[in-house]
Amino acid sequence: MSQLYASLFYQKDVTEIFSDHALVTYMIKAEVALAKAQAQVDVIPKAAASSIEQVAQTALKDIDFNNLAIATGLSGNIAIPFVKQFTAAVKAVDEDASRYVHWGATSQDILDTACILQARDALYVVERQLQHAYAASLELAEKYRAEVMIGRTWLQQALPITFGHKAARWASSFKRDLDRLEQMKARVLTAQLGGAVGSLASLLDQGSTVVEAYAAQLNLSVPSCTWHGERDRIVEMAGFLAIVVGNTGKMARDWSLMMQTEIAEVFEPTAKGRGGSSTMPHKRNPVAAASVLAAANRVPALMSSIYQSMVQEHERSLGSWHAEWLALPEIFQLCAGALERTVEVLQGLEVNSKNMQRNIETTHGLIMAEAVMMAIAPKMGRLNAHYLVEKACQQAVAEQGHLQDIVSSFAEVKQYFSADELALIFKPESYLGNIQEQIDAVLQEAKGEVK
Amino acid sequence: MSQLYASLFYQKDVTEIFSDHALVTYMIKAEVALAKAQAQVDVIPKAAASSIEQVAQTALKDIDFNNLAIATGLSGNIAIPFVKQFTAAVKAVDEDASRYVHWGATSQDILDTACILQARDALYVVERQLQHAYAASLELAEKYRAEVMIGRTWLQQALPITFGHKAARWASSFKRDLDRLEQMKARVLTAQLGGAVGSLASLLDQGSTVVEAYAAQLNLSVPSCTWHGERDRIVEMAGFLAIVVGNTGKMARDWSLMMQTEIAEVFEPTAKGRGGSSTMPHKRNPVAAASVLAAANRVPALMSSIYQSMVQEHERSLGSWHAEWLALPEIFQLCAGALERTVEVLQGLEVNSKNMQRNIETTHGLIMAEAVMMAIAPKMGRLNAHYLVEKACQQAVAEQGHLQDIVSSFAEVKQYFSADELALIFKPESYLGNIQEQIDAVLQEAKGEVK
Amino acid sequence: MSQLYASLFYQKDVTEIFSDHALVTYMIKAEVALAKAQAQVDVIPKAAASSIEQVAQTALKDIDFNNLAIATGLSGNIAIPFVKQFTAAVKAVDEDASRYVHWGATSQDILDTACILQARDALYVVERQLQHAYAASLELAEKYRAEVMIGRTWLQQALPITFGHKAARWASSFKRDLDRLEQMKARVLTAQLGGAVGSLASLLDQGSTVVEAYAAQLNLSVPSCTWHGERDRIVEMAGFLAIVVGNTGKMARDWSLMMQTEIAEVFEPTAKGRGGSSTMPHKRNPVAAASVLAAANRVPALMSSIYQSMVQEHERSLGSWHAEWLALPEIFQLCAGALERTVEVLQGLEVNSKNMQRNIETTHGLIMAEAVMMAIAPKMGRLNAHYLVEKACQQAVAEQGHLQDIVSSFAEVKQYFSADELALIFKPESYLGNIQEQIDAVLQEAKGEVK
Amino acid sequence: MSQLYASLFYQKDVTEIFSDHALVTYMIKAEVALAKAQAQVDVIPKAAASSIEQVAQTALKDIDFNNLAIATGLSGNIAIPFVKQFTAAVKAVDEDASRYVHWGATSQDILDTACILQARDALYVVERQLQHAYAASLELAEKYRAEVMIGRTWLQQALPITFGHKAARWASSFKRDLDRLEQMKARVLTAQLGGAVGSLASLLDQGSTVVEAYAAQLNLSVPSCTWHGERDRIVEMAGFLAIVVGNTGKMARDWSLMMQTEIAEVFEPTAKGRGGSSTMPHKRNPVAAASVLAAANRVPALMSSIYQSMVQEHERSLGSWHAEWLALPEIFQLCAGALERTVEVLQGLEVNSKNMQRNIETTHGLIMAEAVMMAIAPKMGRLNAHYLVEKACQQAVAEQGHLQDIVSSFAEVKQYFSADELALIFKPESYLGNIQEQIDAVLQEAKGEVK
Repeated sequence: MSQLYASLFYQKDVTEIFSDHALVTYMIKAEVALAKAQAQVDVIPKAAASSIEQVAQTALKDIDFNNLAIATGLSGNIAIPFVKQFTAAVKAVDEDASRYVHWGATSQDILDTACILQARDALYVVERQLQHAYAASLELAEKYRAEVMIGRTWLQQALPITFGHKAARWASSFKRDLDRLEQMKARVLTAQLGGAVGSLASLLDQGSTVVEAYAAQLNLSVPSCTWHGERDRIVEMAGFLAIVVGNTGKMARDWSLMMQTEIAEVFEPTAKGRGGSSTMPHKRNPVAAASVLAAANRVPALMSSIYQSMVQEHERSLGSWHAEWLALPEIFQLCAGALERTVEVLQGLEVNSKNMQRNIETTHGLIMAEAVMMAIAPKMGRLNAHYLVEKACQQAVAEQGHLQDIVSSFAEVKQYFSADELALIFKPESYLGNIQEQIDAVLQEAKGEVK
Repeated sequence: MSQLYASLFYQKDVTEIFSDHALVTYMIKAEVALAKAQAQVDVIPKAAASSIEQVAQTALKDIDFNNLAIATGLSGNIAIPFVKQFTAAVKAVDEDASRYVHWGATSQDILDTACILQARDALYVVERQLQHAYAASLELAEKYRAEVMIGRTWLQQALPITFGHKAARWASSFKRDLDRLEQMKARVLTAQLGGAVGSLASLLDQGSTVVEAYAAQLNLSVPSCTWHGERDRIVEMAGFLAIVVGNTGKMARDWSLMMQTEIAEVFEPTAKGRGGSSTMPHKRNPVAAASVLAAANRVPALMSSIYQSMVQEHERSLGSWHAEWLALPEIFQLCAGALERTVEVLQGLEVNSKNMQRNIETTHGLIMAEAVMMAIAPKMGRLNAHYLVEKACQQAVAEQGHLQDIVSSFAEVKQYFSADELALIFKPESYLGNIQEQIDAVLQEAKGEVK
Repeated sequence: MSQLYASLFYQKDVTEIFSDHALVTYMIKAEVALAKAQAQVDVIPKAAASSIEQVAQTALKDIDFNNLAIATGLSGNIAIPFVKQFTAAVKAVDEDASRYVHWGATSQDILDTACILQARDALYVVERQLQHAYAASLELAEKYRAEVMIGRTWLQQALPITFGHKAARWASSFKRDLDRLEQMKARVLTAQLGGAVGSLASLLDQGSTVVEAYAAQLNLSVPSCTWHGERDRIVEMAGFLAIVVGNTGKMARDWSLMMQTEIAEVFEPTAKGRGGSSTMPHKRNPVAAASVLAAANRVPALMSSIYQSMVQEHERSLGSWHAEWLALPEIFQLCAGALERTVEVLQGLEVNSKNMQRNIETTHGLIMAEAVMMAIAPKMGRLNAHYLVEKACQQAVAEQGHLQDIVSSFAEVKQYFSADELALIFKPESYLGNIQEQIDAVLQEAKGEVK
Repeated sequence: MSQLYASLFYQKDVTEIFSDHALVTYMIKAEVALAKAQAQVDVIPKAAASSIEQVAQTALKDIDFNNLAIATGLSGNIAIPFVKQFTAAVKAVDEDASRYVHWGATSQDILDTACILQARDALYVVERQLQHAYAASLELAEKYRAEVMIGRTWLQQALPITFGHKAARWASSFKRDLDRLEQMKARVLTAQLGGAVGSLASLLDQGSTVVEAYAAQLNLSVPSCTWHGERDRIVEMAGFLAIVVGNTGKMARDWSLMMQTEIAEVFEPTAKGRGGSSTMPHKRNPVAAASVLAAANRVPALMSSIYQSMVQEHERSLGSWHAEWLALPEIFQLCAGALERTVEVLQGLEVNSKNMQRNIETTHGLIMAEAVMMAIAPKMGRLNAHYLVEKACQQAVAEQGHLQDIVSSFAEVKQYFSADELALIFKPESYLGNIQEQIDAVLQEAKGEVK
């Protein structure tokens, strides 16, 4: 992707993790872990592992990335030419050790393990972002728990809610995301080491011992068997990220709709150089929302590629595995980018209470029709209440009057309710159901979770 | 979808769960649970709930499905016209009770709850299928643990494996699927009840009490807050199913490739009316694989729709929610269909050992080059071994001879190895690495899991 | 898909074309055309063709659809069991003729040809719908060419446009769709007849002659070669439909946003049973938009499946071809459904001029800042004009005053402009650029196109 | 995307066209064209246009790309900070001229026009590649028109074809791609200039005149109206490219399957550093196929994003437009990459006739059963022929004998056919139907098309 768009769609740390330099660094880590593991169980000489580890410390600066790019085109993956260059670097220092570089492994072992290491570091960033997003939305839920606004369904005004309730619903989705992440960690953060066909044949009878030592070196779990062709762990991670992106997309849709000039209930935090136009001084472009929504358009499509790529041939496939290399890093980057912008907006959201109150009056009381019916039913019976309110609504629409005025003018109503009582019935805050209990439940659930 | 294709792509039980009649049945269940819950906490009269429950028992046969279909087009969802018809049915028996049908609920409450109930029943079927698939692949792993065949990478012959190892890798993916299913159940199988905007306003201060009673009636978990617009649970279920489909797709690709006329190592079980042609008597069409692969092509695309549909507006959305109605049932049906065919194939797979042995000889010993090098290296040094084998390979290719014959003719080799020893080195079963340990690990992991 | 949803998402005629019964009817048509073509060039006896044609006339009612569904699951496609049943029907009348049913053809020949025949009929419906949509949007363009409303970018108010301009832009996209359809017809509406591997080997030296006669019988173009495995024509059709759906999705997004309670500029036409709620009398749910948007969410995902399915194996594939069977009919149905709803809305759209005028005043004149600057620049220089307007805007925002009042109060402005002149400058209709020329260009382009 | 993968998946020229530097260059071109067009029709001073044009010649080197990247993140698109920097560059030379930079345009005008200019240049490359691919596949069709091989359906051996026929079918898909490209050029290669809301309001009554002059400067077609929100042209281009990728994906699947060790009928051309392994000397990895198949997995998913992004809000949208920026360049690059590798393979394909002949014998004559039946039917009647061949096939399978030997041993057969005649019947080349006519038709169609 264009570097120009990185600041618009991505997040710095995660983008760094998936940079070409970092990928090579992770592959070096995998090779060192392999050598050390094999030395530990006496498959290769300890001296060889030492040399490999030592060379690794400065190997990155010696990697010829241009050559790597060209050779990747020919060999079909990065690991083959990388191993060649890395082996040459070791050979320059210790010819004997160079023979033990990549011992028994296949290129996919190194690429898959590097991928898992990248994923672990990137998931750590995502987890932190999710915690921030969760904390920020909980704070909004608490702060605005009584901030009445209109609830909307099918893009139409429906009944009142509070802004805190909306935020609590957002928060609860972050909670579920954090739970999902926790549940999958041990399963997906696992080592890959199988050799050409998954048998580690060239390690003779020491394959399993080496896998265990290798995983321990990298602090990854030990898989029960090689998974070169069974990609469900990769897909599971991507699917988790895609859910996170979808959750942020829902929020971005909400806040961008609420930022519409005619609605103007919330605003993305301002920043120098963002939005603003001298000839359109009223505009307040939802720039962060645009980024998040672009991610929420794009990640679902990338997921389609990821799921398709599960159909792999035999012990190690062609094409499908390649497609994964392109999709997974981008899903990580778009997810981290979407989260970064969402956290920023949740933490700095400007809430315009006045406009929320103004908008709730758009229908001149019609949104309170149900509330009124519920309030007067106990006095005059449900059916009568229904007919009365229906009549009042029709009159309000016809005369463009306020429903409260019309209802107040009905003798049947005056009989039971004083003007003050009626005014109270028409207050949106009187008709919020169990919103406060829901907010409490969401806040309660967070105890001990948010750092 | 065409009914004609149902037997090809779907599975009977799950298709039944997502039939129109079943959907209405599940909606009736939701309405009954609502009435009973509300009666239990005195929101509606107990007599009303009784009448509703009683009418519900025979309501399905009175539903006018044609009218329902037409009215759905106008109202934008099925629940609105369904509630109308159901209310009328109750009214015919107990006019007073009919006023309490669907009390305080919105159409999405009923549709979402019905959807969760469908999902629970369908997940139960899928879980059973996964257990069967797991058991069948474990059985193959055990039975064929020593059945040597060629391992293939990039569609090229690489090194030997055993068919049991392939099956063990398949089995381990079913194990992970079962684990995923277990982890998500409590989170996703949750009740939905929020009223128009998620506040249950018309239930006044009894909203939360009713939600709890409602969930208890249905044996679903109680969500901390309404989730009309936060669809991550739906997506999570779909994502799980998509992983299952991807895993079966990988297997179908494998077995269809192994069924190629030139390879002929395994075959789908035969059945009357399947495959077979009098004018092409050699053909053995992988009909089950075609179904599974079609699912593995289609479900990823449907997932893209599902993830996209997370971007919903405000308290309840338009369009995105609608898209979900079409995608989720189909993902369930394709998953169950793919699993059914996979179970059938795994349980009845014909394995042709002779052809496995024949194919491993395709390269005249070249696939054993690495094994030979590993075997002679301890005697003559790695480097010498490498050069010797390289030379032998070149000669084998040039003369189209068998590598064993050529290696055997080398004096350096004869010096260290008898003909019998060499023959043993060239046996593919001598070069299987830690495959048996991996198979054991997979079998071990299954203890207590497979019923 | 659920029949309940057909009226919500589909269109009757196209759904009928893709029904199971119609599919069988189209296959019968293909078999009859094959027999007649072969009789015509003396490949089979003329009497046999006559019998086949005669039986075909009533064959549909004899088809056992249950048996067909079951047998499809076993054989892997519909054509195999269909041919069996159809042959039996012919045999019951004329045993000799029955031997010439499906002569030389493979099941894919019949399925592909039936698919093309379905597509031709469905494209005819789509073309008619596109013409209606084009005509309706042109009418809106003309009728509302001077109906001023606010133009919006990034969901923010920007500068004035007219509703007619918006409609003209919609219209121009339908024009392009009609052009695309015309260009692809000859290429995609082509016959398929190749026998098992595309060689028509069993027709010996008469293959090409038969293909020509067959295509002529069906009034389809003759392909230069068999295309069993090259699916680009199918994909091209689907891609055309997906563009149409995307174009309607854009419009549905527009009109649903304009229907928001706070904006209320246009409304979907009302219909009995649509929208409406006695307890939420202000709601006007954009039901048609929901359908169209659901299609615009779903069809892109189905396209992903269709493109993926191009990767087919050898002469005739497995799995990918199967996936096509599910996706193409649905894309057709969703496209026709989206168009039907769009035509209905375009033809019956309620336009609320008063609200358009109200909304254009939301910013108290700020949206006219650029217009004012352009108007006063010739008098006082661009730079001075810029600074003056910037100052006025800041003041307007700070004081919540109307920009016109503030600008009018500036001495520099009064010097050059009378109050009336200023009022004119502030009229949105004074700042519409080349909108009328664009509308004329779109109307002009339509001459001779719209029937 | 990782630069490391560019050489594996992309094509150099097209990647250069979509580089950040090139994008800025195309935006500069658009700004210069705008200034020159406006000077030409006296909207801005001719001197200003001259200065702008002059500065443009060296502007690229003065662009601060780091600043551009950061500012893009804040403003939400590249054009806003680019215009700022470009204006500053002009101002440094001619302050007056700097006021006329980007006159009347909106950032989307420049981005969309730059995108169309990129597309034109990239389509030119793609067209050349398609011509090469078409020529190469025609050449294969001609050269191997009589090279008999087995045709395969459902991955099973079916009946004989020639390799030239396969190539002819590939060729015909390139022909259709070239036709599609030709048909869409005028429609999609069109200018974009509309100002903030598509009205070019700040150009007062000169909007249409400027659009025409602008399009003429750039040699693009003049659209009937602004198309900021109607993205069908962009999608049409992408859809064309996706079809091309799908067509190449089909071929890559074919040749990678034919490269399987057990089949070995064709091979990708060798190149230094490609494939090859000293310890697996028999391996010949289909590296080019892996790249093409990865593109054919990925582009369909990106298309899903592109179609989704058609649902844009109002006059100019947020999010959906952004998603397009990421998808379109990548589709172009993957398409050009897939074509490059396909051309390379088609031009250098190694065809192994011997293995083709060997494989056609895999079934010991069973694939000729139909041919035999057709040949003896005229002598002994169809029904008798059918039974005889069926019996012979069963015997061949049971005894693992060659069908020819068994058929030859039947007295009924000997009565009519000499051994030589039977041998001829069993020759695959005797049963190729109209393959030669089809190849001729494809070659004929190409006359005057291939340069």
